[in-house]
Amino acid sequence: MSAKRDIYITEVALRDGSHAISHQYKLEQVRRLAQALDKANVPYIEVSHGDGLGGSSLQYGRSLTEEMELIEGAVDVCEQAKIAVLLLPGIGTQSELKQAAKLGVKMARIATHVKEADISPQHIALAKELGMETVGFLMMSHMATVEELVEQAKLMENYGADTVYVVDSAGALLPHQVKERIRALKDKLQVNIGFHGHNNLSLAMGNTLAALEEGATRIDGSIRCLGAGAGNTQTEVLAAVLDRMNIETGIDIYKMMDIAEEIVALILPQPQEITRDSLVMGYAGVYSSFLLHAKRASEKFNVDARDILIELGKRKVVGGQEDMIVDVAAELALKQEKANSR
Amino acid sequence: MSAKRDIYITEVALRDGSHAISHQYKLEQVRRLAQALDKANVPYIEVSHGDGLGGSSLQYGRSLTEEMELIEGAVDVCEQAKIAVLLLPGIGTQSELKQAAKLGVKMARIATHVKEADISPQHIALAKELGMETVGFLMMSHMATVEELVEQAKLMENYGADTVYVVDSAGALLPHQVKERIRALKDKLQVNIGFHGHNNLSLAMGNTLAALEEGATRIDGSIRCLGAGAGNTQTEVLAAVLDRMNIETGIDIYKMMDIAEEIVALILPQPQEITRDSLVMGYAGVYSSFLLHAKRASEKFNVDARDILIELGKRKVVGGQEDMIVDVAAELALKQEKANSR
Repeated sequence: MSAKRDIYITEVALRDGSHAISHQYKLEQVRRLAQALDKANVPYIEVSHGDGLGGSSLQYGRSLTEEMELIEGAVDVCEQAKIAVLLLPGIGTQSELKQAAKLGVKMARIATHVKEADISPQHIALAKELGMETVGFLMMSHMATVEELVEQAKLMENYGADTVYVVDSAGALLPHQVKERIRALKDKLQVNIGFHGHNNLSLAMGNTLAALEEGATRIDGSIRCLGAGAGNTQTEVLAAVLDRMNIETGIDIYKMMDIAEEIVALILPQPQEITRDSLVMGYAGVYSSFLLHAKRASEKFNVDARDILIELGKRKVVGGQEDMIVDVAAELALKQEKANSR
Repeated sequence: MSAKRDIYITEVALRDGSHAISHQYKLEQVRRLAQALDKANVPYIEVSHGDGLGGSSLQYGRSLTEEMELIEGAVDVCEQAKIAVLLLPGIGTQSELKQAAKLGVKMARIATHVKEADISPQHIALAKELGMETVGFLMMSHMATVEELVEQAKLMENYGADTVYVVDSAGALLPHQVKERIRALKDKLQVNIGFHGHNNLSLAMGNTLAALEEGATRIDGSIRCLGAGAGNTQTEVLAAVLDRMNIETGIDIYKMMDIAEEIVALILPQPQEITRDSLVMGYAGVYSSFLLHAKRASEKFNVDARDILIELGKRKVVGGQEDMIVDVAAELALKQEKANSR
């Protein structure tokens, strides 16, 4: 199998896909999928709770299987693929990162909100110290201007990251927005640039090609779209598209198609499609965790949940500010009442 | 509701989607969906057998309900939306087109293989005579070079078409290929240019935005991806994306989201996703009708069905040449045998 790779794909189904199955991965599923991906010559496979190391909790959802066990299982079955973990400072700890490194994890992806790169230096430094390839992962990138994004990415570069990713967590970016972001990062940074898309606006693939056009060389995908929301860029489709463009990923396309059909389709509780809920998330540009809160507030104040989510998106509300949801719903109800009484 | 539209969307779920449900539309489903789409201010709704007027047959699949009945039902419930029909010369007849016009159909889309526009002049002329808005629909557009496409499109323009569509029947085009095609047509033709995408390579939306960027003003979509193969550009998502780009479609986004969730999801036998089969079609660039034949030949000659389909794509085999499939399989088997005996 060709060792040459023009771009490097990270398969995230065993991390981002954890959301789609409420963190119920079983050890055998992880071993089987990781081994198959390894045989298809996927270079990086991310394995963690959906919210990264230490994510298993009442707040973020309990994992069925202890994640270190899953990581160990994946490392055990891979011959060439490197196992990656995600870590959000504040959720995952340095001790967990050390444990992952000891188990044989070769890549650490340190993730922060796009405006909070400054909480990542210790974890980036530790990952480098542990000899891991280190990625800075700027989530909800649509919430920052291009200038802000560059500034935050430069922080991660300065902390020692080998790669910085533009992460479109809500699937809210449009291709021209992806292009201007990747172009600016290529222009101002020396490290590798990556892109992580979601398909909420049916643009994961279009955005990925836009990112590649501007020089991104690291791309995330989830096989059969097994990721949060509407899923990510569909890995086996991406491998086929890039093959058509003579861009070498090193990945065996037929094997990936078979894995999607014979392993991953059976893991998904239902096929991934763009539903009303996932579309609204992408359109509004908000976290999917807001959805349930917005639906509750919608009933209480008798306003459309979509109006609440869109207003939250406009205000760039972030995780942890869920109490804003009720305020926004109350304001909208008041406005609605005034409009009706005119 | 705004009457202003920057671009005009044709909803094709009641025609292209006919393939996805083996042509089993019931009158009540069509009436209900057409009425809801009309209320959401969709400007054009296409209603026909999946292969166009007269498609109901042993070869193309029998319709459960006589299509003129479905067309009449859709016309009956629409207040502002115009009903369109598809017609492939050789399948549909002039008499069926007259009948459709009599029932109140306002748009005729005359479809030919991208290299066979010359079989369309009579039907285009008749549609114009009948006072219908007339579209030339160049199917399998990926099989022609840009120059050939322009030449064929010019024929349809000369025959009297008001609009010419680039139709990516196999979902095989990549965004840069869509751009060069639309750009060339905008450059050389005076009529409206349209784009009809399929999602087999997860690029229906990306390709649609590429087409709009180059000046296409007519776009097809299928709500909830209810179309052949992996479905078309998802209409409710497209309406939301264009709203984000300040491109006015006139369509009510919330209503479209609700229709997708509450009506269309229930019509689909299973959610639309990109499966191994639909991916192979897009990757190889062949008709979906080849799939079954290729699978049979695969078993007989013990070669991978995908290799057969890809070879057929390379040779630009078209509908009606199904006997080529066995030839190709036999050749591949021979090659395989020779390679193994070395």
